[in-house]
Amino acid sequence: MARRGLLIILSSPSGAGKSTLARRLMGWDATLSFSVSATTRAPRPGEIDGTDYHFVTEPAFRKLVDDRGMLEHARVFDNYYGSPKAPVQRAIEAGRDVLFDVDWQGAQQIANSDLQDAVLSIFILPPSITELHRRLVERGQDAPDTINRRMQKSWDEISHWDSYDYVLVNDDLDVTEAQLRTIISAERLRRAQQPDLLDHVRTLQRQFEER
Amino acid sequence: MARRGLLIILSSPSGAGKSTLARRLMGWDATLSFSVSATTRAPRPGEIDGTDYHFVTEPAFRKLVDDRGMLEHARVFDNYYGSPKAPVQRAIEAGRDVLFDVDWQGAQQIANSDLQDAVLSIFILPPSITELHRRLVERGQDAPDTINRRMQKSWDEISHWDSYDYVLVNDDLDVTEAQLRTIISAERLRRAQQPDLLDHVRTLQRQFEER
Repeated sequence: MARRGLLIILSSPSGAGKSTLARRLMGWDATLSFSVSATTRAPRPGEIDGTDYHFVTEPAFRKLVDDRGMLEHARVFDNYYGSPKAPVQRAIEAGRDVLFDVDWQGAQQIANSDLQDAVLSIFILPPSITELHRRLVERGQDAPDTINRRMQKSWDEISHWDSYDYVLVNDDLDVTEAQLRTIISAERLRRAQQPDLLDHVRTLQRQFEER
Repeated sequence: MARRGLLIILSSPSGAGKSTLARRLMGWDATLSFSVSATTRAPRPGEIDGTDYHFVTEPAFRKLVDDRGMLEHARVFDNYYGSPKAPVQRAIEAGRDVLFDVDWQGAQQIANSDLQDAVLSIFILPPSITELHRRLVERGQDAPDTINRRMQKSWDEISHWDSYDYVLVNDDLDVTEAQLRTIISAERLRRAQQPDLLDHVRTLQRQFEER
């Protein structure tokens, strides 16, 4: 019996290094799959359908939600975003862990879904707000108002740190990546994640009885 | 605020490598402490009081049990064995994890004690019964009857593998040691094991408000 994969949720305020860490984890373990979000917003130049997002129409999005085909979804301004359930279910049934880059609201919806038994949630904290602010400013030519709104959103995200299983402070990307690997590797050693053990114990029992 | 240490329970049938692994873990991390059992049996040649066992009288042992001073205890033939609670409590309150080498009955008692929140239980399975039998035979000049009784006890122990958090098959000591390190390191990254995070988040909040 193949093990069922885990739903590994990574949340953090933007600028705390989450995307870089997710990319590094995908490079570390080729069996990890990444949950590509569906969205109703138009693709930006360079974005690839199926890789960056699944670009769908609003009726298609709504139908997925109505058919309980979304693990989590939210409306942000005029657009919808969500995590389609079908590819996640296929991956975990094939024994592959799935990585999610979602905010605290998405994390809560996934943690309350019918796949909640397989959820592992990790929050990444920034070393400081100064650093977070610096990264937001560096990122683009956003107006101070936009930066302020993002900082407010970041704080909102941080304030939910205490509903996650694991929490890491991303002082150093290499250290944090190693910690993420450690967490994922350990979780795979849980009894519940190793259905093959049952076969091993049955073999031991047969050997014991035939001895 | 210092984190409270974990109670790390290692169980396995004898001959599966548990003692070697426990010793290696103690060498890996000097902050780990080992729960030395108390016993009413007489010391054997070479055994050191306080290191191998705490050798106590039967009245002293009974008093500890009556005063709820034992995390777990059992009678084996005419002798009593148990894990005194006081040193464990001192260690975990100082933020040190404590390693226990106990059987499934001891593990269950500790898992039902008032320290249950801090318990992490790991079962080590042998690669095969043949191997387990070979190690028991190699170990000494025991009579076939004794070996048979030990094998029966080993199977009894194995049959409780499925009440542990983590289960490892000890095919290779180095691999199993690395897995144990991974599990302990990951468990220390759980939010509940990092009370200092609260200070960090408070600092982030102050920085956010003063920005």
